[in-house]
Amino acid sequence: MRTQVGIIGAGPAGLLLSRLLTLQGIDSVVLENRSREYVEGRIRAGILEQHSVDTLIEAGVGDRLQREGLEHRGIYLQYPGTRFALDFKELCGRTVWVYGQTEVVKDLITTQLDGGPPLLFEVSDVVPEEVDGESPRIRFTDAEGNPQVLECDVIAGCDGFHGVSRPVVTAGARGQLWERTYPYAWLGILADAAPATDELIYSWHPEGFALYSMRSPSVSRLYIQVDPSEKIENWSDERIWDALDTRFAHEGWSVNRGRVTDKSILPMRSFVSAPMRRGRLFLAGDAAHIVPPTGAKGLNLAVADVTRLAGALVRLLHEKQSDLVDVYSDKALERVWRCTHFSWFMTSMMHRSGDDFDAQLQLSQLRRIHDSEAAARELAENYTGLPIES
Amino acid sequence: MRTQVGIIGAGPAGLLLSRLLTLQGIDSVVLENRSREYVEGRIRAGILEQHSVDTLIEAGVGDRLQREGLEHRGIYLQYPGTRFALDFKELCGRTVWVYGQTEVVKDLITTQLDGGPPLLFEVSDVVPEEVDGESPRIRFTDAEGNPQVLECDVIAGCDGFHGVSRPVVTAGARGQLWERTYPYAWLGILADAAPATDELIYSWHPEGFALYSMRSPSVSRLYIQVDPSEKIENWSDERIWDALDTRFAHEGWSVNRGRVTDKSILPMRSFVSAPMRRGRLFLAGDAAHIVPPTGAKGLNLAVADVTRLAGALVRLLHEKQSDLVDVYSDKALERVWRCTHFSWFMTSMMHRSGDDFDAQLQLSQLRRIHDSEAAARELAENYTGLPIES
Repeated sequence: MRTQVGIIGAGPAGLLLSRLLTLQGIDSVVLENRSREYVEGRIRAGILEQHSVDTLIEAGVGDRLQREGLEHRGIYLQYPGTRFALDFKELCGRTVWVYGQTEVVKDLITTQLDGGPPLLFEVSDVVPEEVDGESPRIRFTDAEGNPQVLECDVIAGCDGFHGVSRPVVTAGARGQLWERTYPYAWLGILADAAPATDELIYSWHPEGFALYSMRSPSVSRLYIQVDPSEKIENWSDERIWDALDTRFAHEGWSVNRGRVTDKSILPMRSFVSAPMRRGRLFLAGDAAHIVPPTGAKGLNLAVADVTRLAGALVRLLHEKQSDLVDVYSDKALERVWRCTHFSWFMTSMMHRSGDDFDAQLQLSQLRRIHDSEAAARELAENYTGLPIES
Repeated sequence: MRTQVGIIGAGPAGLLLSRLLTLQGIDSVVLENRSREYVEGRIRAGILEQHSVDTLIEAGVGDRLQREGLEHRGIYLQYPGTRFALDFKELCGRTVWVYGQTEVVKDLITTQLDGGPPLLFEVSDVVPEEVDGESPRIRFTDAEGNPQVLECDVIAGCDGFHGVSRPVVTAGARGQLWERTYPYAWLGILADAAPATDELIYSWHPEGFALYSMRSPSVSRLYIQVDPSEKIENWSDERIWDALDTRFAHEGWSVNRGRVTDKSILPMRSFVSAPMRRGRLFLAGDAAHIVPPTGAKGLNLAVADVTRLAGALVRLLHEKQSDLVDVYSDKALERVWRCTHFSWFMTSMMHRSGDDFDAQLQLSQLRRIHDSEAAARELAENYTGLPIES
C-alpha cells in the first residue's frame, strides 16, 4: 500500500486532517486500532470555538453542526451570592458552539466513508518507521490479521496520549516533556433532562467546583469537582444531584433532574511534549498535549494543530517547500502554551484547593472579572479562541 | 491628655490620617515608638499610584512630590530575547509616580511639626484600652519616661505589622488571618548611579527575577530574586552587579554601576487580617495587611485605607452617623484583596519557582501581555491603582 500521508488515529484530529488534505488533492490513509462503534461512542468535549466551527464548515462537514449545534454567546460565572453573565459576543465579537466531539467524529466518519480516502478500523501493531528519511512507512496488522506496510511521504501521529507516535518523536533525543497533575478530578454525568440554563454555568463553591453544561435541548452534561481518589460507586445519582443543588444554589432557580445515562470520573492533567515533529513524522492533538477540560480547549487545539499541519503539508507535497513544516512545531506550540496557560488559569480559579488564602484570591479574581471589562475580555478572547495565525 | 482621634504609629498611614483629619477640623495625636531620625531613614517603597498622588496633593503635602517626583507612564516587561513597554497612560489613562515612601514621610512630618497636631516620638508601652466602649484610651510612656493616658473618641491603629493594635482587634474573637510566605526573597540595593532606563524594568530570567527601579535621576534602586535563606554577606557588590547584568541582558544596553549605599534582603509575604475594626479601634495600612513588593501596592493601600477611614471618622465625629465606620472594614478589605491578588499575580508571574511547567506558564502569560490589549490593560489598571469607591 502507498499513500502520501499516513494518518495514525481516527479521532477528530486524524479524520479532519484527512478531510482537509483530500480537499487539497492529497491522498491519505487513516489507521485506527479501535472499532467504528467504539470511536463513535466516546463521550468527550462539547464546546467548539469559532475557528473550529469555521474550519468544519469550510471542510464541508458542518451541515449537521449548523442544524443541531447550539450557538452560545457566553457563559455564567458564579460564586456564593452572585451569578453573572459574560457576553462573549459583546466582549470580543466571537461566540462558541455546543456540539459534542462525538458528533463531530460521526460527521467526519460519514463523509470519509462516502467516497473519501481509506479509513481502516481495528488495525493493530502499528509502527511508524524510517521517519528520519524521505520515505517513511507504517507497519500494521489489518482487521483480518494480515501484516501490512503503508509507504508514505509523511506520517501524521494523531493517535492521542496513549498512542505509538509520540514515543517515536521523543526518542529523537531532543524531546522535552512538561506535566502537571491537578489535585482534583471531575465527576461527570449525562442526563436526560432539559438544561435549566441557556448558557454554561461555571460555579465556584466552598465544597468544590461545579459545571452545568448541555449537549442538546433535552440532554444536560453536569460535572462536580471530586477528589481524584473518589470511587464512582460511592456516588449514587441522588448524592450527585444533591451536590449539584448545593453548588449551583441560586435564589429562585434550580437544577433540572432526569435519568442519568452516563457517569464517570475524569482526571485533570496538563501535558505538553515538544517538539511536535521528528523528520517526516508530525504530531497533532492529544498525541502531543493534554489540557484539563475546564477551558474546553482540547478538541479546539486539535483542530488548530491539523489546520496548521494541513497547510504545511500542502506546501511540502505540492510545492516541495519545507518552510511551513519547518516552523510547524514551534508555531503550534505557541498556541499550545497559550491554551495550556488559559486552561490552567480557569482550572486554578474555579477549583477549591489549597488553603483559605487561595480561596480569597479566587474570589477576588472572580469579582474582578465581574467588575472589569479588561478582565472579562481577557477571559472571553481566550475562551472563544484566538485566531490561527500562519 | 485628650483628643478626638488617637493615632498609633507615625508611618505614612498614621501621619496622613492625622493630616486628613486636621483639614476637616478633627483633632488627633500621633504616637510613635521610634525616633524621628529612624522613621525618616527607613528605605521603603517608591511607587505612588495616581490616587495616592492626588490625595497627597489635595492634603497640601504634595509640593515637593510635584517638584522632585518622577511621573512614569509605564513599565518595561522583559523575558529572554524580549523587552517591551506597557504604556499605562495609553492603556488606561493613568500614570504612577516614583517618589520614595521615605520622602512622603519626611514631607508629612515637616507639615505636622509646623503647627499641626501633636506628634510624639520615642513613646513606649503603648496600650489601647476600652476600645469596645465610646471612650477608648491609649496608655503609654512618653520620651521622658512619664506614664501618660490619652483619652480619645476613636483610636487608629497605624502601627504596622509588628504593632500592638492588631492583636487587640483580633482578640475580639471574630478575627481571621490569611498568610502566604513566598519561597523567595529580594536582595535590594540603593546605588549612586544614574538609572540606565526611563521606566522600571521587570525582568523574568531563568536564574531569577530582577527589578530595575530608581529613586531620582542619580540614584538607582535594584533588586534580584534570591533564596530566603541567603546571607547578605555572601553577596559582594561585584556579585550583585554581575547577577544584574545577567538578568537584565539586552542587546545594546547595559546596567549602570555605581557606589552601593544600602544593601538588604526583603522577605516576600502576603498577610491579611480581618476585620479591620473592633469597636472604636480601626486598623489601617500594614497593621492589617502586608503585600509582597512586586506590585508596589503596600504604601498605596495604606493611603487608600486612611482616605476611606478619614471620611468615615469625619462622618462619625461631625455628624454622629456610624454608617461609614460600620462598612469601613468590609469596604477596605475588598480593595485589600484586589491588591493582594494583583501582588500575588505579579509576584507569581515574575519569580522563578516550581518546575519548568510553571516557567512555561509564566512565559506564556508574559507573551500574552505583550500581544493582547486586554491582558495589558488588566495589568495597567491594577498597577496604576483602581479608583477609591465610597
